Amino acid sequence: MLHGNAIVGQSGGPTAAINATLAGVIRGAFDCDAIDTIYGAFNGVEGMLAGTICNLNEVFANRDDLRVLCATPAAALGSCRKKLPKLDDEAGKATYEALVEFFKKNNIRYFFYIGGNDSMDTVAKLTAYLADKDWEMRVMGVPKTIDNDLVGTDHTPGFGSAAKYIAATMQEIIRDTAVYTVKAVTIVEIMGRDAGWLTASAALPGRICDVTPDLIYLPERTFDMDKFIEDVNAAFAKHPNVVVAVSEGVRFADGRYVGEGTQSGATDAFGHKYLSGTGKVLEQAVRDRIGCKVRSIELNLMQRCASHIASKADLDESQCVGAAAVMAAANGESGKMMCYVRDGGDAYSVHVESGDIAQIANKIREVPDEYINAEGNGITEAGIDYILPLIQGEPEQFYENGLPRHFVIKR
Amino acid sequence: MLHGNAIVGQSGGPTAAINATLAGVIRGAFDCDAIDTIYGAFNGVEGMLAGTICNLNEVFANRDDLRVLCATPAAALGSCRKKLPKLDDEAGKATYEALVEFFKKNNIRYFFYIGGNDSMDTVAKLTAYLADKDWEMRVMGVPKTIDNDLVGTDHTPGFGSAAKYIAATMQEIIRDTAVYTVKAVTIVEIMGRDAGWLTASAALPGRICDVTPDLIYLPERTFDMDKFIEDVNAAFAKHPNVVVAVSEGVRFADGRYVGEGTQSGATDAFGHKYLSGTGKVLEQAVRDRIGCKVRSIELNLMQRCASHIASKADLDESQCVGAAAVMAAANGESGKMMCYVRDGGDAYSVHVESGDIAQIANKIREVPDEYINAEGNGITEAGIDYILPLIQGEPEQFYENGLPRHFVIKR
Repeated sequence: MLHGNAIVGQSGGPTAAINATLAGVIRGAFDCDAIDTIYGAFNGVEGMLAGTICNLNEVFANRDDLRVLCATPAAALGSCRKKLPKLDDEAGKATYEALVEFFKKNNIRYFFYIGGNDSMDTVAKLTAYLADKDWEMRVMGVPKTIDNDLVGTDHTPGFGSAAKYIAATMQEIIRDTAVYTVKAVTIVEIMGRDAGWLTASAALPGRICDVTPDLIYLPERTFDMDKFIEDVNAAFAKHPNVVVAVSEGVRFADGRYVGEGTQSGATDAFGHKYLSGTGKVLEQAVRDRIGCKVRSIELNLMQRCASHIASKADLDESQCVGAAAVMAAANGESGKMMCYVRDGGDAYSVHVESGDIAQIANKIREVPDEYINAEGNGITEAGIDYILPLIQGEPEQFYENGLPRHFVIKR
Repeated sequence: MLHGNAIVGQSGGPTAAINATLAGVIRGAFDCDAIDTIYGAFNGVEGMLAGTICNLNEVFANRDDLRVLCATPAAALGSCRKKLPKLDDEAGKATYEALVEFFKKNNIRYFFYIGGNDSMDTVAKLTAYLADKDWEMRVMGVPKTIDNDLVGTDHTPGFGSAAKYIAATMQEIIRDTAVYTVKAVTIVEIMGRDAGWLTASAALPGRICDVTPDLIYLPERTFDMDKFIEDVNAAFAKHPNVVVAVSEGVRFADGRYVGEGTQSGATDAFGHKYLSGTGKVLEQAVRDRIGCKVRSIELNLMQRCASHIASKADLDESQCVGAAAVMAAANGESGKMMCYVRDGGDAYSVHVESGDIAQIANKIREVPDEYINAEGNGITEAGIDYILPLIQGEPEQFYENGLPRHFVIKR
């Protein structure tokens, strides 16, 4: 067994579950005989290079605080967007040498990195660099992204909570817009530049409740403005309040993002092109070509930080995958990413395995054809079957004086 | 005692508490000896004119469903924006006659109208019209608006839940934006055309948690773009992530709404002026004049429909005020609006009284000077003291298969 200290960092965009994974890693380290102290690096690898770290054994002397950490949005250790230099880049060598010096100085034998594609790239590069150095060490990646677009894992930690927020909010918005009898269109813009998983979650109320968006557009299908206007007009045959869910990443046939807004030719006084957002572009199209009441809503940052309506399934799994990373490393694995594998059978269950980062990094997992309807404007039952288990359950919350209490790691 | 049936309707924009008030009216009617059957009018007075009503004694044969109704957003009976004609308008006489015919036909002696200014106007006109007609009847208004801008009541049903959503979301957004070390501005646009109550709620996390927006701008103060840029630059001295809460209704000294976006001169291909919204205008100003990373977020409809994070205090009071309207009517009152009166003393408590609609209608209650800081860019402790009790407590929720279950009144 490789004895020593451990360090954990967070990187990339926050999610409602990235702190649950952090809690899992910390619990795993506390329970691991090979690990003496687990440190936290503030702002990912930047913290390791700057020496801004904290002792998590001290921060979580009261283990109950880990429960509050699970209910805390954003990244409690802070984040960064730093990519390590290429291994054959002479100028970048100093960065790796500084990291190894840091590891040696603090007797760090285990490094856990919670993040997206860039973080997995860091794990892969660092493992390769350390291979022939005189410092034995285990480096493990734990994925996170609300986008659910990583290959090699059934789904990503953080996606279930974002999907639950989107589904619950869609239900509320549809009920809100249905109170009037006047013809109106409501367009809800949802995150997802390259894959439509989050937007597909808007379909969930259709299975559970009596409401569903009329139209759902994903980046996996080419967006056609004439067809969109036709679809909206057809939906008015059913009811006066049409609700549309659209991914921010939909593109026209020529590859332009719909949200570029270039078709309106709008510029400001300085000649800047107006980046109006996908929802705003569709709103303007409905106003110009149908002429009814129309509103667009951008779910924005709330999709990734609304921890007050996180998915218990997601937070539970996110803790498990963090603890599993520690166990795998203690058992000798390194340079791997932890993945969810969905078990077969009628009832949903997953187990965690380690996967080969090289097979996984820098690829996009799109929504498959069988989850999108033939018209390209809705989600199939198979798609709903896939997402539904991931939003189940309401996690523990710690309200105090009317607001959720979060755990803050002080610097 | 005036015996007969009752009818209840909802009008104006939805809130997360308007169905709690409906539940209160229904419970009050069930418990009132003078009322045999309580009907619901679909889409307010429009439903009474069209004869589209339902029997609420049958709909709520299972009284437990009233608990689920309280946790349901939007207006379960649908809404309308209809204003009754002026009383001295000959052409409008037919509307009043049709209403009285409807009341007589269904032996309706009690009418409860849950709504905003327009609904209170309906209550006042109908009471005046009925004064010399051969149909004795009691008409009562129950206020609702997330805007909290009605005079004559300490606060409005629906405001507390919207304030809780805004405060909780601000806390989450501030934590989310704080994870990076890069200079960035996040602008959150909050509802409130004429009064800044909702935007003031963004200050609540400052009392409860360790975070607060750096700058808060209300429509009660003239907005100055140069001062705004100065304020943002000054806030950067404290930390790299500046968060701004701004009311959609802020105006320049010349009276123009900031959200008119005319200062950018943006027009689309058809020459339409681009109505970009207050947040977008400030976002563009930061981009042009400070040049750092900037994002704007509109809380949009979620402010009024996010019943999954409603305030228990608000829902409880909203039920009480509904039941109190029934009791007041049974005791002979008519043409009144139910109001909250805050009791003195250290601990928060309110009681319900009926108020004179004529004194209340068509006036705007603004945020008073003592709740706004001297610089006009923040909320005082007195302001927080006023709002804080209104967001307390988490109401009962009915999750099913991962999403909140709502109660739907079928047509």
